[in-house]
Amino acid sequence: MIEYRNLRIALLGAGSVGSQVARLLLEHGDELAARVGAGLELVGVAVRDVDAKRDVDIPRELLTTDALTLIQSADVVIELMGGIEPAKQYILAAINSGADVVTGNKALLATHGPELFAAAEQVGAQLYYEAAAGGAIPIIRPLRDSLAGDRVKRVMGIVNGTTNFILDRMDVQGDSFENALAVATELGYAEADPTADVEGYDAAQKAAILASLAFHTAVPVEAVHREGMTTVTAAQVEAAEKAGFVVKLLAICERLTDPETGVEGVVARVHPALISRRHPLAAVHDAKNAVFVQAEAAGDLMFYGAGAGGTETASAVLGDLVSAARRHVAGGPGVGESVHANLPVFGIGSVTTRYQLTLVVTDKPGVLAQIAGLFSEHGVSVEALQQTVASAAAGRSGDQPLTATLVIITHEATEAALAATVAAVSAHDAVVRVESVLRVEGDTP
Amino acid sequence: MIEYRNLRIALLGAGSVGSQVARLLLEHGDELAARVGAGLELVGVAVRDVDAKRDVDIPRELLTTDALTLIQSADVVIELMGGIEPAKQYILAAINSGADVVTGNKALLATHGPELFAAAEQVGAQLYYEAAAGGAIPIIRPLRDSLAGDRVKRVMGIVNGTTNFILDRMDVQGDSFENALAVATELGYAEADPTADVEGYDAAQKAAILASLAFHTAVPVEAVHREGMTTVTAAQVEAAEKAGFVVKLLAICERLTDPETGVEGVVARVHPALISRRHPLAAVHDAKNAVFVQAEAAGDLMFYGAGAGGTETASAVLGDLVSAARRHVAGGPGVGESVHANLPVFGIGSVTTRYQLTLVVTDKPGVLAQIAGLFSEHGVSVEALQQTVASAAAGRSGDQPLTATLVIITHEATEAALAATVAAVSAHDAVVRVESVLRVEGDTP
Repeated sequence: MIEYRNLRIALLGAGSVGSQVARLLLEHGDELAARVGAGLELVGVAVRDVDAKRDVDIPRELLTTDALTLIQSADVVIELMGGIEPAKQYILAAINSGADVVTGNKALLATHGPELFAAAEQVGAQLYYEAAAGGAIPIIRPLRDSLAGDRVKRVMGIVNGTTNFILDRMDVQGDSFENALAVATELGYAEADPTADVEGYDAAQKAAILASLAFHTAVPVEAVHREGMTTVTAAQVEAAEKAGFVVKLLAICERLTDPETGVEGVVARVHPALISRRHPLAAVHDAKNAVFVQAEAAGDLMFYGAGAGGTETASAVLGDLVSAARRHVAGGPGVGESVHANLPVFGIGSVTTRYQLTLVVTDKPGVLAQIAGLFSEHGVSVEALQQTVASAAAGRSGDQPLTATLVIITHEATEAALAATVAAVSAHDAVVRVESVLRVEGDTP
Repeated sequence: MIEYRNLRIALLGAGSVGSQVARLLLEHGDELAARVGAGLELVGVAVRDVDAKRDVDIPRELLTTDALTLIQSADVVIELMGGIEPAKQYILAAINSGADVVTGNKALLATHGPELFAAAEQVGAQLYYEAAAGGAIPIIRPLRDSLAGDRVKRVMGIVNGTTNFILDRMDVQGDSFENALAVATELGYAEADPTADVEGYDAAQKAAILASLAFHTAVPVEAVHREGMTTVTAAQVEAAEKAGFVVKLLAICERLTDPETGVEGVVARVHPALISRRHPLAAVHDAKNAVFVQAEAAGDLMFYGAGAGGTETASAVLGDLVSAARRHVAGGPGVGESVHANLPVFGIGSVTTRYQLTLVVTDKPGVLAQIAGLFSEHGVSVEALQQTVASAAAGRSGDQPLTATLVIITHEATEAALAATVAAVSAHDAVVRVESVLRVEGDTP
């Protein structure tokens, strides 16, 4: 069955994912060889410190600190170090030595992707990165290959497990953000410094990768509009639940026509948003991830699974390794990265979406009509309005005026129109405060 | 950008999927060409009757009844006629003329797959079939490529939209099977003769395809254990709901060790089953499909979308076409079908699963203990037992003895042990009747 020489595999990095890749390669080597039609030989693992403690025992003779020499000897290089440098120079060295590369490095792809893809294309090498977005979830191949004959309209993903764990706990247990974060940290879902997760940096990197792929257009991470979820309150989550919504941190990539200029382009954005509890993404609990894709012909698709975890992500890396190895055995160039559409990338200002506004107002006759008037003056159409009875102010001292809470859901509006509306509403005499403004995403099934 | 000659595409069949493929190819040809790096020219559409009425207007000069001549001139042949013959001879003719083939023909693949894959491998041609299981849902590529480095343990799918529509309606509206089927027929979800759907033949074909791919083992449709869902009653669905379950028609493919022999093998089966309402598959409503995959490293994954529909399925066909065309441009052989594992295929007797039994018993002291004793005598362990109060018999004439309903959920047991238990229970004096026996599948999250 095996008619091809052994393929030489170099692994860069032996952290939580890298060490599992090494383990699975060593344990399941025969099975993988049968699938490839050639043996897969792990020839070395480049690490910073050969004596460091690891999750998995890697044979000492495989460990090396000399990554560049290791790379020169390999047919396929698996980069799982993370970070920009030296990962970037190592990947370029691998490409230029004729190796194919498998990487899970989302930070690098989101910032220097086009340069790496161009370098690979020039020498006919391949760059595989299924593990860079969605962890174990197969999303890169479906977008690149399965939907290659379709036109993607929107990608809407829960692509960060830490924040989904926190928001799910706030939803299910009624926890505050701080308490839920503490639990996530205790359980190992959140890092000591959770900034990359809770401020949406991690999700923004994945959004850049998914948008580039979905729209055949290079979308750098700097072009991704990013808002974190640290400002989401327990009260907002509870109010959302009552209104039939759940708060999720979403990465949204969409193809749209700019409402001002009429030009077609792409927008990528990460922010907390309300989605209907009947939407498939609402059923994504704990630290799970899911990517919801809307395509012109295929309709609605969803891909669900573990978005992180050493063993889980190693599955995606090994799938890429088998693809790379099969290509070595079969010969011929593989599939290049496609940016033929090259659409302009717009900012958040081009987006039209629905909004939920929560206002505290003094409970006087006519206030509701005046507020509704402000919306229509600014061209924002109200889809639903709910006024909570003034008893919400119960417990206050008798001197204060009674207040009511208005929850308003708008039809689709631009950011600019919404911002102008919020400014006008805030300035209105009867408005005590604007309690929250949240985007509402997804069709309500 | 285009540096390659136009690729010649032949389409066989212009039914609901075929006509949409023709439309999308003609409308989006330039976009597909940019993704492939070569033009895609639809050179002909073979049909039985060029004058037949179709969903989409196909230029008259493209239509032909001479499929074999058309095939000879093509680089890629898309077969969407369905059925065994003449589809099979056309596909073999295409392979032998050096063309790659894209097909959505599940009946053909489930019965003659190995013969077709062998013919393709012999000449280095490729056979793509993303549309044959799961309609628009990308499931073939993820199983074949993304999970190629992992070991799949179980595939559990809702792969028939008609029966999911019916069962969802029975669940949500409380409809009887007959009423729900009537609605499905009226809305076009069920065909005039619904046998292929409701008796599980369609799902069994997809199970054979998914099992073959997931376990690198040829699994013919004849080896798939099949039970339809026409026997599911409104009462069963209602009782399931009360117990926190939902009834779904599942296609289950699993790798297991035969409990008798200790031999590892594969089982594929289609039957109605209870799953927990918290399981991701429980949220698959209407005519949607979803495939839940459990892999050793990746953990739980789910792929969700439209399992049928002309335009939706055309998306999968065009994705395959782009893959085939890219391979023509890039040169070199593609990925062969992998059956290296070649595991034995077992029958339903090797399966251990959980069961829910509903028994009507006479309400006398000691009956519950006697019934429980029968389970333990046959080696079937009871996980949960619920006795409905005797008032269930209210309304009967006063002469009849009071009855109670026992709902028993077992731990995992073999088919044989369960059958022996049911026989013993049925023969017990106090048992009025065995109301229903249903398998319980999936972990309860």
